[in-house]
Amino acid sequence: MTGSAPLAPAPAEIDATARRIAAHVRRTPLLASRAGEFGVDHALSLKLELLQHAGSFKTRGAFANLLGADVPAAGVTAASGGNHGAAVACAAGRLGLKAKIFTPSISSPAKLAAIRGFGADLHAEGARYADAAALCAAHAAQTGALNVHPYDAPATLAGQGTLFREWEAQLAAEDAALDTVLIAVGGGGLIGGACAWFGGRVKIVGVEPDGSRALHAALEAGAPVDVPVDSVAADSLGAKRIGELPFALARRVGVVATLVPDGAIVAAQRLLWRQARIAAEPGGACALAALICGAYAPSPGERVGVLVCGGNVDLSALAQTAA
Amino acid sequence: MTGSAPLAPAPAEIDATARRIAAHVRRTPLLASRAGEFGVDHALSLKLELLQHAGSFKTRGAFANLLGADVPAAGVTAASGGNHGAAVACAAGRLGLKAKIFTPSISSPAKLAAIRGFGADLHAEGARYADAAALCAAHAAQTGALNVHPYDAPATLAGQGTLFREWEAQLAAEDAALDTVLIAVGGGGLIGGACAWFGGRVKIVGVEPDGSRALHAALEAGAPVDVPVDSVAADSLGAKRIGELPFALARRVGVVATLVPDGAIVAAQRLLWRQARIAAEPGGACALAALICGAYAPSPGERVGVLVCGGNVDLSALAQTAA
Repeated sequence: MTGSAPLAPAPAEIDATARRIAAHVRRTPLLASRAGEFGVDHALSLKLELLQHAGSFKTRGAFANLLGADVPAAGVTAASGGNHGAAVACAAGRLGLKAKIFTPSISSPAKLAAIRGFGADLHAEGARYADAAALCAAHAAQTGALNVHPYDAPATLAGQGTLFREWEAQLAAEDAALDTVLIAVGGGGLIGGACAWFGGRVKIVGVEPDGSRALHAALEAGAPVDVPVDSVAADSLGAKRIGELPFALARRVGVVATLVPDGAIVAAQRLLWRQARIAAEPGGACALAALICGAYAPSPGERVGVLVCGGNVDLSALAQTAA
Repeated sequence: MTGSAPLAPAPAEIDATARRIAAHVRRTPLLASRAGEFGVDHALSLKLELLQHAGSFKTRGAFANLLGADVPAAGVTAASGGNHGAAVACAAGRLGLKAKIFTPSISSPAKLAAIRGFGADLHAEGARYADAAALCAAHAAQTGALNVHPYDAPATLAGQGTLFREWEAQLAAEDAALDTVLIAVGGGGLIGGACAWFGGRVKIVGVEPDGSRALHAALEAGAPVDVPVDSVAADSLGAKRIGELPFALARRVGVVATLVPDGAIVAAQRLLWRQARIAAEPGGACALAALICGAYAPSPGERVGVLVCGGNVDLSALAQTAA
């Protein structure tokens, strides 16, 4: 992707994508919380996207890519902190396509096991996502495999956008709606999808760990820049640079960017488990963390949605966190 | 409870109970699965009641009892394998009432921690539920505390019945319905609530572990009888005798009683975690197990509901199960 005018999917394209992938993705449930639950003195609409196939929202973007293109005989490939890789492996497995997934070696055992479980060829090497991305690009160039980008591609954003379309429809069926939505940000696929779907209709709050602030830094610098990555949520939110397309959308729509400390992320994981048996990974608990630590303080009556976006957590690690 | 005509709550009483407890219980979400998911070649409606406060459906019955009676100054007491105790502790804590909970010493650490976490006075002693029940009855007799029965009380059944009322309403909002509902059975509170709500309108399948078959034995004998208890799900489904009231209702309505081996229960836990990040306890996975092992085989087109009724599982134990 170059710096020239990026192609954001329009809401109509998200509608079309939703129809295209409908047979393959779950309509994930909502949970309404009351003031006082989860350490937050405000009622919330939680979207339980961690219950999605392959354990995260990434499955939507993966199917959107694989069903929206002619896949070459060499199959598909992806570089990933883990969740995107699991999602592409899941989609390829379901559609009978060959998949080769590159991850950094720090990816969680749960994610690596999931990738292998879907029948993909897994290549775990290098310390960071950028290393995996370079290996993946070389593989795509050499074999002609379709390289499915985790966040800087219109089809990926259209897929992630279907999540917000679905959430609005679920609330509308109960005569409810959202004023504000809180979303964890890594490379920007999810917030890009939210911007593409909502435009300016709903306030979009992007939440990043203190130690992995690619969106925050880009908004300050006026363009995507590299950031250091050191956070408990690094294996899902650890992109060192926000995507060009998500950044352009975030700036155009005017998202609010907030930062949370790792301690608030861990507290959010613990509260989700203790109070509702929701087994979120650190990145999946990041949006809630912003309310717990006060990084985002809603106004009285503000109708707030919190996305619990991933659940690819090692249960033994969660046992430590929740204790 | 004597053997004389038991007082089953009528649907109108379940309606009234639902209104009474509405401010205190969660409307738990549904997840629609497609044929092929969770090892079952049939589409299902899963009710995720494990996301309820205190981790199981028992919270409904606990609030129904505490809000439907004048609670004496000595507070409330309950005997429990764990989930009912956690639910009564949760409800008492929320309502500012004193609670003393008796459990067998085999109850899972997760359940004991939950009971303490809600601020109740916990007394864990004896090998079986029956031992805890005797200690609890003595405490109630001595102090005048309100003894909240886990299954053999009309208010408990009315509370559990609200779950099925809610499930039907959620499906009706999508122009859907149930032909059949699969429910785990221990002492019978849940299936009693289902019978009270559905009557004969929906086929009710009670699922018990091979090694804890109180309903099955009672239906064979024509009356509740003691059974031995030895199952992976003993800490939630380990009642040695079905309640008089649930049994009378089950026989009147004509429930189907099925048995599943422990291996199918563990397989169901594993599939719920791997395919949808649902962290069920063994008893919570028991109803699904009946479909996985073929103990219940639905007909083509049959609209089947599966209740995932509890999630009070030790994460480190679930890590072993799911591996």
